[in-house]
This record gives sequence, structure tokens and C-alpha cells, in this order.
Amino acid sequence: MSDLARITSHANPRIKAIKKLRDRKVREASGVFFVEGLRHVIETANYPSRIQSVIFAPELLSSSTGLATVENLRSAGVEILEVSAEVFRDLSAKDGPTGLAAVLYQAWLPIDSIDLNQQSWWVALDSIADPGNLGTILRTCDAVGVNGVILLDHCTDPYDPTSVRGSMGSVLTQQIVKAEWHTFLAWKRKQSVALIGTSDKAKSTYTQQSYPRPLVVLMGSEREGLGQDRQLACDAMVSIPMQGQNDSLNLAVATGLILYEVQARYAGRKEWRR
Amino acid sequence: MSDLARITSHANPRIKAIKKLRDRKVREASGVFFVEGLRHVIETANYPSRIQSVIFAPELLSSSTGLATVENLRSAGVEILEVSAEVFRDLSAKDGPTGLAAVLYQAWLPIDSIDLNQQSWWVALDSIADPGNLGTILRTCDAVGVNGVILLDHCTDPYDPTSVRGSMGSVLTQQIVKAEWHTFLAWKRKQSVALIGTSDKAKSTYTQQSYPRPLVVLMGSEREGLGQDRQLACDAMVSIPMQGQNDSLNLAVATGLILYEVQARYAGRKEWRR
Repeated sequence: MSDLARITSHANPRIKAIKKLRDRKVREASGVFFVEGLRHVIETANYPSRIQSVIFAPELLSSSTGLATVENLRSAGVEILEVSAEVFRDLSAKDGPTGLAAVLYQAWLPIDSIDLNQQSWWVALDSIADPGNLGTILRTCDAVGVNGVILLDHCTDPYDPTSVRGSMGSVLTQQIVKAEWHTFLAWKRKQSVALIGTSDKAKSTYTQQSYPRPLVVLMGSEREGLGQDRQLACDAMVSIPMQGQNDSLNLAVATGLILYEVQARYAGRKEWRR
Repeated sequence: MSDLARITSHANPRIKAIKKLRDRKVREASGVFFVEGLRHVIETANYPSRIQSVIFAPELLSSSTGLATVENLRSAGVEILEVSAEVFRDLSAKDGPTGLAAVLYQAWLPIDSIDLNQQSWWVALDSIADPGNLGTILRTCDAVGVNGVILLDHCTDPYDPTSVRGSMGSVLTQQIVKAEWHTFLAWKRKQSVALIGTSDKAKSTYTQQSYPRPLVVLMGSEREGLGQDRQLACDAMVSIPMQGQNDSLNLAVATGLILYEVQARYAGRKEWRR
């Protein structure tokens, strides 16, 4: 079935290198990341140029779609690493690993390469810390048709395993940009793009706002929200109405509410009502 | 400052018992749960009858509000356990523990004690698995003024530390019910309460639906959504429109979208539009 010897040793240098991809610094230096699970790898097969190698444990992989995916990728010239069940379990973060994983190339779009037009809308996230939130936001961006996500200043890594898992494959389909705040601000001023931010103090609620395009929706960090300088740079600020004891929502939920409101407006399902 | 000796030993039976609250079975048998962090404990002080004991490390707690909270609760007759920094760090799941935690009583409302009226609306969650999602949903429920949450069949524990943290205190303010599906169904039939479920296959979208009260919004599990029998028991099913490659949203995001839509309708901020 394979022209490569099966890897059975944890000390194999390729296996050791893949295991180290749990570490953000190693991911950043190498420009690749690890995904595991049948569903993720099968979806990844749609983007063969993003695949550095596939890791596959014949003793664990029973799914016929999974096996067919491995063979298709092998025919397409993708490197296939066959490993023993024991080596695969060592790489895996899952309790019941399915025997299929991959190492994929990261893709970062430079901010100046963003192609803005009258249909464009993007999400910018300022210093967000939780990779679960980031993955969930990428998943929502895919669902509403956002063009991509701009990560400002010190954000968590979209290629963190928790983010990758939470994104359900959207980490591959969303365009991802990383920029310092001052670079982003210079870019925003050069382009004629509307910037709309969120704060619990904003007078207008998100359902009362109009959303011109091209648009960037700006969300603050989980702990601090958007700082004063960020708010001042925005063309408009919106709040999400809340009753009860808490003064904020989970960041991924808040982002979801705003993106769905904007998308409904663009799709003509809702009108702007003051 | 205290009439109790400071606990400096990890082998202290109270400390050992508190540490075991990480285990769901121990939480269920004891009917209590552990919260930590300044913000959480200070909020908890509003519900003194829910507090079994406060754990406090004088060497770590520097916040004057935190110290005042401890003294107020001591005056109110709440048991205060003074512990060394080392013992506190051992109990804590945090990197930089702030020296304040509490053991709180769980509260479960029997389903027959739900007080339904023409303003009531509840959320029911069927077999959801992720405590982070559950905590986030409780937080959203607080924000929109839902009366409480009904956990159906085998759900994750709302008193899991991840759920408690994600709920930002809402685990104390939301009414929480646990029921088997058949018990819930019998209750729903006895009461005249509308049951509206969600599925990506539903023809009507969530913005097209009317939401009579009393209402229960029913959400399915992260992996499976709502099974056929659950869908058949619903008075209406709604979907959330999606484009892109994924066929579902994160459960907490999907729940947030529906709850905010319903709440906007109840608050008269939106009208029902076909």
C-alpha cells in the first residue's frame, strides 16, 4: 500500500518535529500547523497545495472515505507518513484518535494585499486571547461570508490546535491578516473603509446602525474590550443591549450577533430601522 | 483578623474535599461546587445563602474590595477558611491566583416547580457536551432575561469549573432544571408552552418565525443537533441561514443568535417579518 517504511519510533525526527507544533514559537518559525481528525483532513484535501504531509495510521483508520482521501492525495504527490497506532496516539490530542492527521502550511495575507471592493467586509480582532473564541469567530465568518479576519497586535494564534478545531476548517478558507494597530490605522486611512467598533457604552445599538461597505467590524479583547484610542479611530460605535447582572457577552457570541445583523442587512433580509 | 487557625497543610481534610470538587461525581454527591477569583466571589456575596464557605489566602489577597467582602461575609456568619498561599495555589486552577475562592451550594429546580406565565421563556439544551458552551449560554441567558435553562438527558455539568467560569456568575442567577426527555415532554404537554427547535434543514429561518409565550427554545447537541423525535415534538423548527463551507455554527453562537432575535421581538425592537 505504501512505498515508505512505516514509522514506529517516537524518536523519529519527523515525528518529533510534528509533536513540537503544539508550541506557538515552533509553529511561527516553521510556518506550518497540525490538524487531526477525519473530517478536518478530508476537507483539507480540497486544498492540496496547503498540505505539507499527511500522517496516517493504517491500524486506526477504518473509514473508507478517509482511506480514499489518503490514496487520492498520494496520487497527487502529497507526502504520506505512515505511522504505527502507538506513534499516532502520541501525536494526537484526542481520546479516540481516528488515525488521520496532516501538517498544513499557514497562510498570512499582507495587509496591503487585501483586495477591497464595494462588497468587502472584514472582521478585525484587537488583542484577543482565547484560541477557542478565535476558532469560533472564524467559523462564524465562514457562515456569513466575511472576506477575512485581521488580527491586531498581540492576538492568540489562529493555528493553535484549539482554534483550528473550533474553526471547523474555516482557518483554511478565511483570509487571515496580522498587523500592528498603527499599521492597520494607516491602511484604514488610505483606503476608504468604514470601521465600526463595539462597546457596552455606545449609544446606538447594533440593530440601529447602518453598515456601509467596504466595512471592517472591530472587536476588542475578552478582558478589556476596545481601548479609548481604538474607539476614537472608529467611524461609529455600537452596543449590544443587555439586561441581567453581567455587563458583557462572550466575545464569540457578541461577534456572531453583529456579523449576522450586518449580513442580514446586506442580504436585504432586514432594513435599517432607527 | 481571624478566630480560626490558618490551614497550611494540603492533607487537611477540608482542603482535600474541596480539591475533589473538580470531579463531577463528587460535585453531584456533595451538592456543592468551587468558584475562584475576585470577581466571582464578590458577586457571590450578593447570594450569602448560597455560600457554604469562603477560602481566603491573606498573603495573596490584596484587593480592598476582596478583603471587605471577606469581612462582611464573616460578620454575616459565613464560614471563612484561611489558608496559606501554598495551599491556595494547590486548590486553584489559575496561573496567578488572587487568593479568594468559595464553595457554593448548587441549586436545581424541579421541573414541576417551573412557574410559567405569559412572560416566561426558557432554554432547553439536549445532551450538550461542552461545559464552555454551557457557561457561555448561561451568560447569554442572563443578558437577554431568559428565566432559566433546562438540561435534558446527559448534559455536561453547569457546575463544572469551565462552565462556572464561562457563565461569569450567571450559573447563580439562572434557574437550572435537569430532566429526562420523556419527563420534559410530559411536562410540555401538560403546560401550554410553545416548543421551538433548531435545525439546519428547517425551512423557516429564525428571523421569520413568531415566538409565542410561554416559550421553550430547544437546542441540540454540538455533534448531532436535534434528533428526529425531538424535532417531531417541536411546535416549530427554525434554521439559521449559512453560506460558506460549514453546515453549522458553534452551539453557543447559534443559541445567542436565536435568543437575541426572540428578545428583540419581545422588547418590540423588531417585528415579525415573513
